[in-house]
Amino acid sequence: MNEQQIMKPYVIGLDLGGTNSVFGIVDARGEIKATTAIKTGGHATAEAYVAACVDALQVIIEQVGGIDKIKAMGIGAPNANYYKGTIEYAPNLPWAHDGIVPLADMFSKALGGIPVAMTNDANAAAVGEMVYGVARGMKNFIVITLGTGVGSGIVVNGQLLYGHDGFAGELGHVTMVRGAEGRSCGCGRKGCLEAYCSATGVARTARELLEKTDRPSLLREMKPEDITSLDVSIAAGKGDELANEIYQFTGNMLGEACADFAAFSSPEAFIFFGGMVKAGELIMKPIRESYERHVMKIFRGKAQFLVSGLDGASAAVLGASAIGWEI
Amino acid sequence: MNEQQIMKPYVIGLDLGGTNSVFGIVDARGEIKATTAIKTGGHATAEAYVAACVDALQVIIEQVGGIDKIKAMGIGAPNANYYKGTIEYAPNLPWAHDGIVPLADMFSKALGGIPVAMTNDANAAAVGEMVYGVARGMKNFIVITLGTGVGSGIVVNGQLLYGHDGFAGELGHVTMVRGAEGRSCGCGRKGCLEAYCSATGVARTARELLEKTDRPSLLREMKPEDITSLDVSIAAGKGDELANEIYQFTGNMLGEACADFAAFSSPEAFIFFGGMVKAGELIMKPIRESYERHVMKIFRGKAQFLVSGLDGASAAVLGASAIGWEI
Repeated sequence: MNEQQIMKPYVIGLDLGGTNSVFGIVDARGEIKATTAIKTGGHATAEAYVAACVDALQVIIEQVGGIDKIKAMGIGAPNANYYKGTIEYAPNLPWAHDGIVPLADMFSKALGGIPVAMTNDANAAAVGEMVYGVARGMKNFIVITLGTGVGSGIVVNGQLLYGHDGFAGELGHVTMVRGAEGRSCGCGRKGCLEAYCSATGVARTARELLEKTDRPSLLREMKPEDITSLDVSIAAGKGDELANEIYQFTGNMLGEACADFAAFSSPEAFIFFGGMVKAGELIMKPIRESYERHVMKIFRGKAQFLVSGLDGASAAVLGASAIGWEI
Repeated sequence: MNEQQIMKPYVIGLDLGGTNSVFGIVDARGEIKATTAIKTGGHATAEAYVAACVDALQVIIEQVGGIDKIKAMGIGAPNANYYKGTIEYAPNLPWAHDGIVPLADMFSKALGGIPVAMTNDANAAAVGEMVYGVARGMKNFIVITLGTGVGSGIVVNGQLLYGHDGFAGELGHVTMVRGAEGRSCGCGRKGCLEAYCSATGVARTARELLEKTDRPSLLREMKPEDITSLDVSIAAGKGDELANEIYQFTGNMLGEACADFAAFSSPEAFIFFGGMVKAGELIMKPIRESYERHVMKIFRGKAQFLVSGLDGASAAVLGASAIGWEI
């Protein structure tokens, strides 16, 4: 621990989601010392949102000994631009959906001038793994978040890869199925990794497979439109063959994608993050096997495939706070 | 120019190819002050090869004022490991095809202890563009070399991307056509970018297209097995429709690949290098158009598509020498 960490031993992490804004005050070991939350919506302007955040924050800042103990703040948020500290045209944030909000500056001013950095949630997860998680000591790795979408945070030479405009690391949108037969993706294009391997992609694979065959499956007890990736996970856990095939298909595609990513940045580890990873080996084994089958010979057997080391419930807050240590 | 560059104003560049080893002594502006060459083969051991190189080098080193004027040496070589300064199992180098040769150390010892760095030719080209070429001032760009194979050098935050093992940046081997119908690639896998967009890939596209149709083409005047990418370029330059279609196909695939690369590292420029690029807009226009059609909306219209700024004949030596400045 360096001198500054002894004088200012904490950072604030904010996991800014479409529904909730969750705060944690975190020490250098990743222990959450105090936490609070407010609703993200229901504020007419960004100014009103920041004011409500600061009201809630004051209480937990006092709990840890006041603002003088806080080194910095890190924010994980959708459509965040790291270079500018702004949120830009975020469709799910009512006070930021049609403009550019300089949120990092606004928080800094409201909190006595502490440095504030902001990035998207997948990048925050990557820094979280490097600071507190399974990537401690690693300088080249890729975090892949499997949630409603597929996100990624790429670390190269110990630094997050932002690219020239701050938007690098959109690995959910590499094209896995080219041409007209690719599934439509939320980004407006076709065949993206996200369209197959996100939670919604897995549910869609389930519906397609149920429709295409008449093989028995626990999933047939539900209405097709109600099936979620969690249902697939539960069925697979019970040994359901069709559910396992869905994981095989999903893992196979993730492994193929990782083989391409290796040709790009040759990371020492791929780290998977998010609800779907709770299925453990059911998803990790097909990913690994497919990767080794598809990757170039010079990369074979070199990369580790790991599950996030951040505690699920607070992972997003820890990731956001980690950005604060990196300022 | 800093003090060290005034005291030691030159670096040695070595373009180590399967046939020739070409040396240049280069100043900080990329001017080649003296040059020489020897055959790469015909030496029983790596030691004999280095001794022959140093014999040839002595002459041009004297021309520029002696070894005290030389800051460093950079080598561009096949199967080069930057981290270790070794050439490993290089199939086309008789004195390195079945072992690991610590070539950087050997040259350093033979040249009075000057620092020596080595990397593959595509990485050397990328540093060459950054130091002397069209990427001066850029911190995030990708060089794609279109030659016998397809190589790449990726620069991120002003640094070459080496990955954890030194082998990052194999973008010729991302998979463009998945499954059994992908073309066989020299790497032993199927559907790689290189199998379609290298010079040999373009010649293969020509043969396939000539066989599939009976449309007229200047290329029909040759034996199919004799057609090279240069012949396609000449025919396309004369307005041959089929030859133009081959460039359309090739450029379309390169543009699709670059759209995936943007999702990875969001570079400000893609720089194309190698014989095929001499076709100019015939290949660059389809690349650009395909890229804009396929890339995610947030990246549209942001990236430049450039042709290498290094003089063709000496580009490889310049690239190698540039590695010397970066030590």
